[in-house]
Amino acid sequence: MATDENILGTCPVDRGLMRIGDRWSMLVLRDIERGLTRYEQLRTGLGIAPNILSRRLSALAEAGLIEKRRYSARPPRDEYLLTDAGRDFLPILMAIGAWGRKYNGAGALSRHLDAATGEAVRPVVIDANTGAPIGSRPLKLEYPE
Amino acid sequence: MATDENILGTCPVDRGLMRIGDRWSMLVLRDIERGLTRYEQLRTGLGIAPNILSRRLSALAEAGLIEKRRYSARPPRDEYLLTDAGRDFLPILMAIGAWGRKYNGAGALSRHLDAATGEAVRPVVIDANTGAPIGSRPLKLEYPE
Repeated sequence: MATDENILGTCPVDRGLMRIGDRWSMLVLRDIERGLTRYEQLRTGLGIAPNILSRRLSALAEAGLIEKRRYSARPPRDEYLLTDAGRDFLPILMAIGAWGRKYNGAGALSRHLDAATGEAVRPVVIDANTGAPIGSRPLKLEYPE
Repeated sequence: MATDENILGTCPVDRGLMRIGDRWSMLVLRDIERGLTRYEQLRTGLGIAPNILSRRLSALAEAGLIEKRRYSARPPRDEYLLTDAGRDFLPILMAIGAWGRKYNGAGALSRHLDAATGEAVRPVVIDANTGAPIGSRPLKLEYPE
């Protein structure tokens, strides 16, 4: 499938961003994770225009991060649930949150605590092979042949 | 500064996304890190419209992720360098890359190798307190009082 590869490009970062590459989509994921699974809850919570929310929900569903589930037949009502792919993106949101706290963190902020220890979570991106934080060891970029 | 806090909101994820919340901005960061520090290099590499690139560069500079440096007086020419805040965002891009590889990874992809071990990096977001991957332990969201 050389053609598809060419269209898609070879950078995994871009591959990720093709699926979820804007602020609203990420905030929608965050809110669904927090239990705001219904359209009206999301619209009110985010203060987002209905057409923008609808477009983001469709895009996230098409990208495979959320799925629609009918919870009431009459009247017809849907809710949105995270897929495995959507849930797998949540740690990235936590890392963005840690960055936001560090560089745009004036005032009081919400935080995640480890439920067992009660300590505030400190998200860090590491290389699972070495355990070292990404950025602390020299890396080499290798392009496909 | 209660007023500022109210305007900003209390979610650190949103605080992060306020500073860098779209695909182009993240790709610009990625490319600067790869050494494409000049306007023309970025424009050609990304295949981005000049007005969009200019707007993204201004926004990233204003958000404190990059800074402009004049490298030639005549003709006047600038390049863009990552600040500490910009460099601190790179591990998040690596995590997005790992997610993109997993969920949108058809075909050949580039990858980062640990320069010392030669092994492909496996970015994972962990809680530095416990060492456990985020998502593997129950968390509690705490709002500011």
